Amino acid sequence: MHAQQIVEDFIAAWNRMDIAGAFAMMADDAVWHNIPMGPAKGMSEIQAVMAQFPPTEGIEFITHHIASNGNVVLTERTDKFLIDGKWRALRVMGTFEINDAGKIQNWRDYFDMAEMQREFA
Amino acid sequence: MHAQQIVEDFIAAWNRMDIAGAFAMMADDAVWHNIPMGPAKGMSEIQAVMAQFPPTEGIEFITHHIASNGNVVLTERTDKFLIDGKWRALRVMGTFEINDAGKIQNWRDYFDMAEMQREFA
Repeated sequence: MHAQQIVEDFIAAWNRMDIAGAFAMMADDAVWHNIPMGPAKGMSEIQAVMAQFPPTEGIEFITHHIASNGNVVLTERTDKFLIDGKWRALRVMGTFEINDAGKIQNWRDYFDMAEMQREFA
Repeated sequence: MHAQQIVEDFIAAWNRMDIAGAFAMMADDAVWHNIPMGPAKGMSEIQAVMAQFPPTEGIEFITHHIASNGNVVLTERTDKFLIDGKWRALRVMGTFEINDAGKIQNWRDYFDMAEMQREFA
């Protein structure tokens, strides 16, 4: 499958709140790096990061732009989370690297930490 | 010219510190939006932003990944600036939109403001 399609499917899984399905699309030794926060290495660390996330009633990742170059897919998005009845929005760009097995090996998101803290307060 | 090539040439102009040459590649009504800081609209505002920048002895924009989709080009970079004899590095992703005249119409960079403040202090 084309790398870009894999990322589109991954984002679609988040948008139907199928976190288990999204995680199943990642390599066991995947690295998820929210750039201002440091990397989570491997699925157990990634799941531990997600477990710290507040209960979420809705997710909408809006993809403004997506482009691929070989196994690398770059995105410009607004990631929205419904928490405590209020939508929180984070402006973000992210890189996804797809391995030979068609799994997400690396996911790096770039955003302003202060914006995240304001939105999720 | 292909949109990606235009952005590669734009980054090359920065890397030889040809700021005038880089600005000549932007539309007169271009918008440069460093996401945490708000947009500069039009070349006079853009040049005013640049004029506030500290004197720079060297520039190296390292392009880790670049991909295009139509007239949109997405990049993952480390932007390095030599200021007061010290290299400052900012991890950034940026979107470039190329207009029909082959000029950069929109440039949006995503980064952590706290990282920028630490690096440029």
